[in-house]
Amino acid sequence: MKRTYVCDVKETTEERVLVKGWVHKIHDLGKITFLHLRDKTGIIQLVVDKDEIKDLRLEMSVEAIGDKVENEKAPGGVELISKGISVIGKAFYDKLPFEVNSYKQKASLEKQLDYRSLSLRSPKTRAVFKIQEEIGDAFRTYLKDLRFSEIHTPKIISSSTEGGSEMFTVNYFNKRAFLSQSPQFYKQMMVGAGFERVFEVGHAYRAELHGTWRHLSEYVSLDVEMGFIEDEYEVMDLEEGFLNYLFKTLKEKCPKELQMYGIELPDKLEIPRMPLAKAQEILLEKFNKKSPVGNIDAEGEVILSKYIKETYDCDFVFLTEYPVSKRPMYAMPDSKRPELTKSFDLIYKGLEITTGGQRIHDYDMLAANIRKFGLNPEDFGFYLDSFKYGMPPHGGFAIGLERLTLKILDLENIREATLLPRDLKRLEP
Amino acid sequence: MKRTYVCDVKETTEERVLVKGWVHKIHDLGKITFLHLRDKTGIIQLVVDKDEIKDLRLEMSVEAIGDKVENEKAPGGVELISKGISVIGKAFYDKLPFEVNSYKQKASLEKQLDYRSLSLRSPKTRAVFKIQEEIGDAFRTYLKDLRFSEIHTPKIISSSTEGGSEMFTVNYFNKRAFLSQSPQFYKQMMVGAGFERVFEVGHAYRAELHGTWRHLSEYVSLDVEMGFIEDEYEVMDLEEGFLNYLFKTLKEKCPKELQMYGIELPDKLEIPRMPLAKAQEILLEKFNKKSPVGNIDAEGEVILSKYIKETYDCDFVFLTEYPVSKRPMYAMPDSKRPELTKSFDLIYKGLEITTGGQRIHDYDMLAANIRKFGLNPEDFGFYLDSFKYGMPPHGGFAIGLERLTLKILDLENIREATLLPRDLKRLEP
Repeated sequence: MKRTYVCDVKETTEERVLVKGWVHKIHDLGKITFLHLRDKTGIIQLVVDKDEIKDLRLEMSVEAIGDKVENEKAPGGVELISKGISVIGKAFYDKLPFEVNSYKQKASLEKQLDYRSLSLRSPKTRAVFKIQEEIGDAFRTYLKDLRFSEIHTPKIISSSTEGGSEMFTVNYFNKRAFLSQSPQFYKQMMVGAGFERVFEVGHAYRAELHGTWRHLSEYVSLDVEMGFIEDEYEVMDLEEGFLNYLFKTLKEKCPKELQMYGIELPDKLEIPRMPLAKAQEILLEKFNKKSPVGNIDAEGEVILSKYIKETYDCDFVFLTEYPVSKRPMYAMPDSKRPELTKSFDLIYKGLEITTGGQRIHDYDMLAANIRKFGLNPEDFGFYLDSFKYGMPPHGGFAIGLERLTLKILDLENIREATLLPRDLKRLEP
Repeated sequence: MKRTYVCDVKETTEERVLVKGWVHKIHDLGKITFLHLRDKTGIIQLVVDKDEIKDLRLEMSVEAIGDKVENEKAPGGVELISKGISVIGKAFYDKLPFEVNSYKQKASLEKQLDYRSLSLRSPKTRAVFKIQEEIGDAFRTYLKDLRFSEIHTPKIISSSTEGGSEMFTVNYFNKRAFLSQSPQFYKQMMVGAGFERVFEVGHAYRAELHGTWRHLSEYVSLDVEMGFIEDEYEVMDLEEGFLNYLFKTLKEKCPKELQMYGIELPDKLEIPRMPLAKAQEILLEKFNKKSPVGNIDAEGEVILSKYIKETYDCDFVFLTEYPVSKRPMYAMPDSKRPELTKSFDLIYKGLEITTGGQRIHDYDMLAANIRKFGLNPEDFGFYLDSFKYGMPPHGGFAIGLERLTLKILDLENIREATLLPRDLKRLEP
């Protein structure tokens, strides 16, 4: 007999079905006994004999044959009259570390993460990763439709010249190597290598010493780089286009998951674009909030986001025209105001989720800029070399997948948006 | 004026188009001068004035406006009469390290890899990665359609208990950590965590001390794990189904790329399944080739593949029933012949591209097996713990993306199927 997924039971023309899953709940009401069976796709009620459940424990995996009956009171409007249940995956616990079948997760986040293969069984917890999966898919689909190619670039790299100190070191056949903070150099090189437009969905690593709600040591970066652009606004247009496509897709594919978190996504995003200096001015004049030179801090991001929401009814804002001093050496300076760069950040509900911009594509200019930053062009060997052969104007951006997930669902901690997080303290599971 | 991609020039209704790309070739025939412009999508011929090309060098990036003319002799049957060319990405080289515009790549593989952003400009070289991208897409599409979820699992892990010595070590905030050889433990855990069916496209790391044509230190693993299976044959069915879908997709989406490499893919794959002992017997009796205990060696794989091709007209063979002694501690033993496991390898054109099988799902059995292997169950803390809560029967497999690409295109070295390879000697670019 072929297995029927729980979500298909109602629609199938079969009278008798085979379902498989975990024992979610047992309700013994005296005269009648219910078993709630949970699979990947949902929860179904079985009407069972007391005998059938006497050896069952919560969270065992079972398969059950049952006859379909419509029942308005049952979850999903249908239930099964059991014709036999067998255990296929036994339980070996004394007591569950926490309840899986309560709608609200009561265990602390740390405990949920310690018992990840149990906490994820809660449909609401797993829903986060359904959303995350669709973000990855939407990213890919949107970009491929615009002739972007997906690439895989190395995460073990030879030098820390881009990022500085916050990198993990690897013993690579007795040579010192690093875990990549970003595919920045490689995605630029691949634009020049004839792919023109590339993206990557891959891990990035930050050995940052802060254990905040928004930092991870290992995260998934959605990286984009496109050649033959006119300016950084084309890059922002691309990201805005993606976010519109993403929200449309999520509404279509994940209505249930969005509803679990009480999220309503806007129908149309038109993201305000504001020079950094203007944002600093608003923060100072309207909120008496001072900003660091050439940036706004985490508190400023939150205040600004609220202001933007009230003024433009948008959860996002592009901050543009960051000063040269606060951007990496590859950021393209503005030709008319050389102290500014053609770069941007994207702030979403008070959190930076993207850095992007146009890059320098001229070999001489890049070499000069590396020197201007007090660095040695020779340390950038293969990267700088790749600019010798007709590198076209280009730019790109990166989105942190977990940060985007976090903000879409209004979660509180980035670890909730990470299957198996890595941070200052956590290296397991 | 909006850019037209080269591949769209013939079909567009515009008379005058803007194209962008690299200077692929300049043909000065005295009376008439041609410039071949190459973009991501193809090569087009421009008829130019001598004046226009006097400052041009090969591989500069340019944009050109031209009027369309049908010309049977031109590549693609259409050419452009130039109305102006401008350089947008300058050249800074004395001499190109090798020719980009010859059909056959003449530079050594090492040199091609040293100048990766140049060697990839050759359409034939880049075609490998078009194929590779479609493999990843087909994998994802095929599995999602069967209700698999895509996951991202950590690559920095705490212990080397699965793999043993061949792992890279990472300094993780002054703790010793490792780069993951495989998401094996995590994908099993995610089956148990309620996802039931999962896949991952992610990096895997092997600190192997051999620099052969088929080994990489960092590669992309296409990993699958599915719960609620009957046996390992269901896992093989899944992989065979994927490969059929993949070949169909490649024929539809990459006819040009397959043709560049002279590859004809079969219409229908029916992969023979053969117990390992039978394969060893054939090797010994028909080819006088001895095999190591419980396995066949690299030479044996080549000989066996030829035999299978001649006998069954198939480039693939599943080898089944590997002995317990040659499989990891999580491999499910055959209940009737406990010295054998319910596991398999897939050999493709003489190369192992997959290991898979059914796994042990019972906590007690797994703990006992860990002990039987001379290991300590306490070292498998979170992994073993996750089997306490009703783990269903499950199994899976992994395919090396670069190995599959290599064999589909009959390449000679796995580095040809890797954008930026990492091996014993190579850590750059």
